[in-house]
Amino acid sequence: MNFNDFKKDVDLDAVGHEFHRLIAQLYPICRSITGNGVRETLGIINKHIPLDIHNVPTGEKVFDWIVPKEWNIKDAYIKDLKGKKVIDFKESNLHVVSYSKPVKKKMFLKELKEHIFTLPEHPNWIPYRNSYYNETWGFCLSYKQFLEMKDEEYEVCIDSSLEEGELTYGECFLEGERQDEVLISCHVCHPSLCNDNLSGVSIAAFLARHFASMSMKYSYRFLFHPTTIGSITWLALNEAKLNKIKHGLVLACLGDPGMSTYKKSRRGGAEIDQAVAHVLKYSNQNFEIIDFSPFGYDERQFCSPGFDLPIGCLMRTPNGKFKEYHTSADNLDFVHPTSLADSFLKCLKIFHIIENNTTYVNLNPKCEPRLGYRGLYWPSNTQHEPPIEQLSVLWVLNLSEGKLNLLEIADRAGIEFDIIKTAADKLLAQGLLKIKTK
Amino acid sequence: MNFNDFKKDVDLDAVGHEFHRLIAQLYPICRSITGNGVRETLGIINKHIPLDIHNVPTGEKVFDWIVPKEWNIKDAYIKDLKGKKVIDFKESNLHVVSYSKPVKKKMFLKELKEHIFTLPEHPNWIPYRNSYYNETWGFCLSYKQFLEMKDEEYEVCIDSSLEEGELTYGECFLEGERQDEVLISCHVCHPSLCNDNLSGVSIAAFLARHFASMSMKYSYRFLFHPTTIGSITWLALNEAKLNKIKHGLVLACLGDPGMSTYKKSRRGGAEIDQAVAHVLKYSNQNFEIIDFSPFGYDERQFCSPGFDLPIGCLMRTPNGKFKEYHTSADNLDFVHPTSLADSFLKCLKIFHIIENNTTYVNLNPKCEPRLGYRGLYWPSNTQHEPPIEQLSVLWVLNLSEGKLNLLEIADRAGIEFDIIKTAADKLLAQGLLKIKTK
Amino acid sequence: MNFNDFKKDVDLDAVGHEFHRLIAQLYPICRSITGNGVRETLGIINKHIPLDIHNVPTGEKVFDWIVPKEWNIKDAYIKDLKGKKVIDFKESNLHVVSYSKPVKKKMFLKELKEHIFTLPEHPNWIPYRNSYYNETWGFCLSYKQFLEMKDEEYEVCIDSSLEEGELTYGECFLEGERQDEVLISCHVCHPSLCNDNLSGVSIAAFLARHFASMSMKYSYRFLFHPTTIGSITWLALNEAKLNKIKHGLVLACLGDPGMSTYKKSRRGGAEIDQAVAHVLKYSNQNFEIIDFSPFGYDERQFCSPGFDLPIGCLMRTPNGKFKEYHTSADNLDFVHPTSLADSFLKCLKIFHIIENNTTYVNLNPKCEPRLGYRGLYWPSNTQHEPPIEQLSVLWVLNLSEGKLNLLEIADRAGIEFDIIKTAADKLLAQGLLKIKTK
Repeated sequence: MNFNDFKKDVDLDAVGHEFHRLIAQLYPICRSITGNGVRETLGIINKHIPLDIHNVPTGEKVFDWIVPKEWNIKDAYIKDLKGKKVIDFKESNLHVVSYSKPVKKKMFLKELKEHIFTLPEHPNWIPYRNSYYNETWGFCLSYKQFLEMKDEEYEVCIDSSLEEGELTYGECFLEGERQDEVLISCHVCHPSLCNDNLSGVSIAAFLARHFASMSMKYSYRFLFHPTTIGSITWLALNEAKLNKIKHGLVLACLGDPGMSTYKKSRRGGAEIDQAVAHVLKYSNQNFEIIDFSPFGYDERQFCSPGFDLPIGCLMRTPNGKFKEYHTSADNLDFVHPTSLADSFLKCLKIFHIIENNTTYVNLNPKCEPRLGYRGLYWPSNTQHEPPIEQLSVLWVLNLSEGKLNLLEIADRAGIEFDIIKTAADKLLAQGLLKIKTK
Repeated sequence: MNFNDFKKDVDLDAVGHEFHRLIAQLYPICRSITGNGVRETLGIINKHIPLDIHNVPTGEKVFDWIVPKEWNIKDAYIKDLKGKKVIDFKESNLHVVSYSKPVKKKMFLKELKEHIFTLPEHPNWIPYRNSYYNETWGFCLSYKQFLEMKDEEYEVCIDSSLEEGELTYGECFLEGERQDEVLISCHVCHPSLCNDNLSGVSIAAFLARHFASMSMKYSYRFLFHPTTIGSITWLALNEAKLNKIKHGLVLACLGDPGMSTYKKSRRGGAEIDQAVAHVLKYSNQNFEIIDFSPFGYDERQFCSPGFDLPIGCLMRTPNGKFKEYHTSADNLDFVHPTSLADSFLKCLKIFHIIENNTTYVNLNPKCEPRLGYRGLYWPSNTQHEPPIEQLSVLWVLNLSEGKLNLLEIADRAGIEFDIIKTAADKLLAQGLLKIKTK
Repeated sequence: MNFNDFKKDVDLDAVGHEFHRLIAQLYPICRSITGNGVRETLGIINKHIPLDIHNVPTGEKVFDWIVPKEWNIKDAYIKDLKGKKVIDFKESNLHVVSYSKPVKKKMFLKELKEHIFTLPEHPNWIPYRNSYYNETWGFCLSYKQFLEMKDEEYEVCIDSSLEEGELTYGECFLEGERQDEVLISCHVCHPSLCNDNLSGVSIAAFLARHFASMSMKYSYRFLFHPTTIGSITWLALNEAKLNKIKHGLVLACLGDPGMSTYKKSRRGGAEIDQAVAHVLKYSNQNFEIIDFSPFGYDERQFCSPGFDLPIGCLMRTPNGKFKEYHTSADNLDFVHPTSLADSFLKCLKIFHIIENNTTYVNLNPKCEPRLGYRGLYWPSNTQHEPPIEQLSVLWVLNLSEGKLNLLEIADRAGIEFDIIKTAADKLLAQGLLKIKTK
């Protein structure tokens, strides 16, 4: 399989809009770490790809954690004395602090204030807040809405439930030639927020759909789970299989107009780290590669010292680095079909490298072999350097000793992976290379 | 023990002046590599800290060297024909080349010139000269004094003695919880020169006095010795114990107004090198870190290839890099209480790190533990990065595998040592870490 | 042997002209990868140095290759209908594509054009072309000459032969104290081209003549061979001896006015790489050091993965980086006696280091030894750093533990090799060092 197969039938402009349509479909749903919002979300994804839905009961012990109660919400509002809803959950599910316990009472603004969160620096935006591990309740308002509230009594209602139930996550497993796995993870616990992380959800879903139609070397496992407790739960339930995971990516914040950012795995020099760096280097775009740190998305768990999996995090603008982050401004206008398509294309290129990154042994290591005799000589103007196809053949021959893989050869040669791979394919066809066996 | 204990009762302004007062008390004494000047100096230091005074007889073989004769001097002058002392040792002990043999004779300027040293580029300053291993005599004059001398006969007198005697050094040993030692060395062989090295002597003495009142993990050994032959003698007499030395600093030139300079140990990456670099990095001051070279102070001996001890040299402006170096301008005005106090504070911070630089093992290495449940969660505005206390807890958990110590974690995280240590203390208290055993 | 011996009797101005005279003598000969041109060239070199001439018959298998037919040429021209030679091989042997098969026929310009090569961007220059492994024929013309040709019939003649014969190369072996060898390679297959590579041929020949008169530690082997097939043939015939080669240089493009360029061996950190880098660093000239790549000159073969010999390539402006490269403008005016002499002097310095780069063990590793006592103390103004002779002695003592060699000590100390070597010589004479035995 090569990259052309990967890209086959991929109309980037069309898929960008397709990604955006899925985001738009998922946008209104009020997700949290547990509850029907996640189930509804997984149901929609399941229309695109086969998904195993797992439900883990409240109280289940997962490493140091316990699966929490299930949270559901029907309605919420703040009403003034005239019965007018000044804040209405139906207008934005960000209005309620996620995981708020039920409340229904009258209170004066002075008291209510302690349960209100605003963003004075962006007076039109509603902030996103949650309180998963501290039972409380609250409302998030635009600062403008807050200023309009008067020093009077209000009726406050959050019609939510926090009860024994289940934590839900979805898993799409695509079996490849090998048992070795690539893990792709995204979080599905945020309410109406697009870049963080419906962009990651959408791209993960379409990657799965795309790969499902292909014959892959690695097996691919796509996880759609609530952040932190979701990845912890999955790790706890699948600990025995983790040694199969050879590469992985956490996908988040992939639709904003910013440049690509890659946060390396904790190992720092894993093959996935090299592959992403290579793709970004040859993207002809600005990009940033940052070192691992133990905060951010679920790489925190995958890269905890007990696992130290080779999993990095691909983003555009990272969490906390765009002003719309965790606010109502992270909406459908903030994510662009072109950015989504570009992120998707980079994922294709990354996994194309992972799929094809073979280590070869030069079967004719003493001096160069006769290349012209084998159709591997590109006649050229002798005043200049030979063409890149020629250089690639020479680099692959010179560096194939069973140590460096094709990606490392490409990086050493300063030549894009696919050109190096094409050279290796030709040399293999000519019997000048063999695949390294362990 | 933590840094607050270290700093407890330390009034930096007051100690700066106290350091300067000790320097002023030691300044008039005519020290050399042997003789009563050193003994008198050690006697004064002994009033502040308990000091073992060692006397090693002339002729004793110490490695390739032999303990030299003891030098003492009562008086010296150059008199003109009218009996007027044009140069008088009593005005400055720099006037006599240190270790000059006795001389008493009349000679014309022409002949005398060969025994006179001046600094034409600084006409008011007297240079400092010595001649330890070549028996000779000489006078050091300001160039101005030299120009005033006439082409006539002078009476020259150096009332010194070079005889069988002893080499003297002082040692202050503070026993800690462990047999492992920290060595702190300074040289006490220079006559009236303040930065080089009464500054180092004063800070070493007060560090010893400060640590003597505390409960330390390491044992601390402070050496006050003549340079070169003194450290060689100590090394020769203590060779069997050197394996206990885990860290060390040579202290010199610590009172001038320049920025801090650290010369790394020969190993280059020893824990002391990392600790000093960390302290200087977080000092909010300019600083310089230079590689080891086999010249300078007694690190030359401690870091000779047969020992290669992890000992660096802490200075402000290094030897030879300030114009007052080895001249009468390295006087009481050249060293400042604030510079001395700042150097002292940096030493406290360095040894605070050395004392607390533990390696831990995360007892919950699979995924993060529940931090909120244990009071280790700092609620924060979800629009931004968590507070530094939170990050520190996450870094310590993620990197504590029994390999990296806290200082290395701090450097990797880009967070100051003490904040990382506080996080580790909290995690240890919560049973989430254990100290790594060998 | 030291560098002064190396340079003894070398009048750089005189040798520069001598190198240029040899180039001028070899310039008119029409060389190719086989044939009488190479034999005539080796015959002239043989007047300067003893040369073993090897003739390897056509058809001999050398690794993946087969020794090709021998090519010779008597004459060639393009005549117009009036019988006027518009192109005449006798005016420039570049006019014929090297290795052209014989041809004699009439053809119109339209047909002839497919066998004509020009350089429109340099209309007065004739390009250099060859076609070794694809039997064809062709003419190289200046673009100006080409524009003067009319759309008419021409008589085309190449009076060449391509027949069973021999491949010829020359070898000059200078036996040293040791069996360990230094290999110096240059290519002798280019026709009238000066920088590429009569400059390399000339310098190699005179290096051999110079070393032949000296007593050397290493044995030196100079190879004068056609490129690619020549080095492959030599490697195939000498495979059993390759383990003796400890260092080597390919010499090419050494006479142009550009700065020196060194292309590192494939190993990258071989002693020859360090030595060349040191010489260039201390040359007080601009220079460039580039990484190994598997194209260029015969380092392609020497550094193929089956051999990976420690051989780099010393040049001034590299192949393909000067506009005169592979054109008639790479003529006697393009190479300068001063550039040739400078390249030669750098070679002398490089091999001076290789010859003298010993690893020592400090016999007095505990503290410094008494240097004054042994005449190794340079009294100096104590206001400043000691003189470089003193520093060198201290560096050699401090770093001689049987691990670092003198070149590595020089690089660590930031002191030129010869000064470090002089210090080591003095320490050895004083019994303070011994040579490391394996």
